Amino acid sequence: MTATKGYAAQDNTAPLGPFEFQRREPGLHDVQIEILYCGVCHSDIHQVRNEWGGSVYPIVPGHEIVGRVTKVGAHVTKFKEGDLAGVGCLVDSCRECSNCEKGLEQYCVNGSVATYNSYEKDGKTITYGGYSNRIVVTEDFVLKVSDKLNLEAVAPLLCAGITTYSPLRYWKVGKGHKVGILGLGGLGHMAVKFAVSFGAEVTMLSHSPAKEADAKRLGAHRFALTNDPGQLKDLKNYFDFIIDTVSAPHDYNIYLNMLNTNGTMICVGAPPAPAQVPAFNLIGNRRSIGGSLIGGLPETQEMLDYCSEHNIVSDVEVIDIDYINEAYERMMRGDVRYRFVIDMATLK
Amino acid sequence: MTATKGYAAQDNTAPLGPFEFQRREPGLHDVQIEILYCGVCHSDIHQVRNEWGGSVYPIVPGHEIVGRVTKVGAHVTKFKEGDLAGVGCLVDSCRECSNCEKGLEQYCVNGSVATYNSYEKDGKTITYGGYSNRIVVTEDFVLKVSDKLNLEAVAPLLCAGITTYSPLRYWKVGKGHKVGILGLGGLGHMAVKFAVSFGAEVTMLSHSPAKEADAKRLGAHRFALTNDPGQLKDLKNYFDFIIDTVSAPHDYNIYLNMLNTNGTMICVGAPPAPAQVPAFNLIGNRRSIGGSLIGGLPETQEMLDYCSEHNIVSDVEVIDIDYINEAYERMMRGDVRYRFVIDMATLK
Repeated sequence: MTATKGYAAQDNTAPLGPFEFQRREPGLHDVQIEILYCGVCHSDIHQVRNEWGGSVYPIVPGHEIVGRVTKVGAHVTKFKEGDLAGVGCLVDSCRECSNCEKGLEQYCVNGSVATYNSYEKDGKTITYGGYSNRIVVTEDFVLKVSDKLNLEAVAPLLCAGITTYSPLRYWKVGKGHKVGILGLGGLGHMAVKFAVSFGAEVTMLSHSPAKEADAKRLGAHRFALTNDPGQLKDLKNYFDFIIDTVSAPHDYNIYLNMLNTNGTMICVGAPPAPAQVPAFNLIGNRRSIGGSLIGGLPETQEMLDYCSEHNIVSDVEVIDIDYINEAYERMMRGDVRYRFVIDMATLK
Repeated sequence: MTATKGYAAQDNTAPLGPFEFQRREPGLHDVQIEILYCGVCHSDIHQVRNEWGGSVYPIVPGHEIVGRVTKVGAHVTKFKEGDLAGVGCLVDSCRECSNCEKGLEQYCVNGSVATYNSYEKDGKTITYGGYSNRIVVTEDFVLKVSDKLNLEAVAPLLCAGITTYSPLRYWKVGKGHKVGILGLGGLGHMAVKFAVSFGAEVTMLSHSPAKEADAKRLGAHRFALTNDPGQLKDLKNYFDFIIDTVSAPHDYNIYLNMLNTNGTMICVGAPPAPAQVPAFNLIGNRRSIGGSLIGGLPETQEMLDYCSEHNIVSDVEVIDIDYINEAYERMMRGDVRYRFVIDMATLK
């Protein structure tokens, strides 16, 4: 075992603080990574505070990990010491089910292993995430990371990036499509970048007038204030797709009515209470609502390669690890543009 | 004008009774049809009783019409006197919008003209439906009807048929797909016939054990009682598609959980209250909910031709027109297998 430093919450009301724990020595198929940067995802807060239930303490969050390989197992073929590497939301899955066979490990029928707040396949070893100085992951769940991009801005691609890339690809969004992105946060700003890059006409839908300039800078062609009925009127039946990144409660029907015939609203944010959806709102214009969860390993690699080729990264604010609790408070107020990333060199 | 006999409701609490009114003489592009049979759709009841609001009285329902052409306008090219003809839910639309141009008149951006309880494009002439001895419709909204099938069993294809055919085609349902049909009524029994005909494995989902034998006779491969949790357990993540034909309130989540990865629940029934849909239930397995409304004119013709070629019709109980109020009561109890059709020869 290897002594590992991290930051953990000991229960659902405690702030995060220093925590020492053990990681396994790399097995035959394992890659050991020195973590350089880890993004801070809103789901870290939900899980630290047990807002989704079932959290396992102590909890070391973090699933937007980039770092450098420090050791590899004897059977590892894709990585060698010194390589850059990334780890996202998953560190294992059953690898046998119909979804795993298709590279859709995020939908593993037998339950994938999350990077933290989960159990390894042995059913008893708690997984600890990227708010730590190293991680050991089986090579099939480690991503290759290009050295062309700023590493701190690559980290959030591992969750915020793939969460928006995957549905845009699955629903084949591109040239000729009008796309609305609801919510300009960690997910929303990546959705804008990808949708623009794929050739769509992109409208940012936000309740904050302060975000208009940023939305345009990120590439959005239009901006509409969601709390100004005058600005929404023009958008009736307008979009082919809406990517809904909002996790706060909101009325889906406002946005469903913006979908043109055959339009699809894709949920990647999950509000706490069920949405109220009158069937008439779907039937009347052959609309759909779909949902999408991160991405599988092959698609995550494809996304990272696409970003490297097209120079796409997240907009980040790099922080020291001891700023994490304040960062959480700022995230709760929407005060980050658009992702905190922990510089793990500050974890001494 | 031509004196026309029909059955109408004078207000939202009155039973249907004899009603005489005028139809226009066929214009240059019009087809005049002697109505032989008219199906009785559940939406007739909703509109007669003003359950959707906005009903215009007197109301002559009926949008599952088959009959014989008695007169055509000078510019009519597709029909001649003596031909069989059908009329469905629409008798006109703007014919200019992007949807009309694609043959999706049911989604006409400027509002299509419904066969009854609507206004002609002049904005003042009330449309009267198929519970009558004749109808005059512009030829572009008249369907060709084959003489190979029993006409009384063809009538319900004009609404129940196309409402289920269209989404199965749009979502490309066929061989290799597992399809659940929720609800065995007018829509459900047609959905079973089409889905089976298209090569899917079909499971009937019904709360009525009495319908199992019928479901199998209609071609369903499996049957599951929706109020027996034991029968539903095997269906977790099972279906690629569910066609939800139920208009009574029901919990969508029971059925969403039966969808496999990438599965779609397609609503063609519209319950009165909004469905409660937790985004997690869509996100967790990349599921979708969609809706679909009848079909456009080209697809309705395609469906009628398909039915003629594959010998597909509705299961009907033919009634006299003076039985209509009792028929409505029986429909409210689900006591019809699976569509009442009025023999219009009984309208003297």
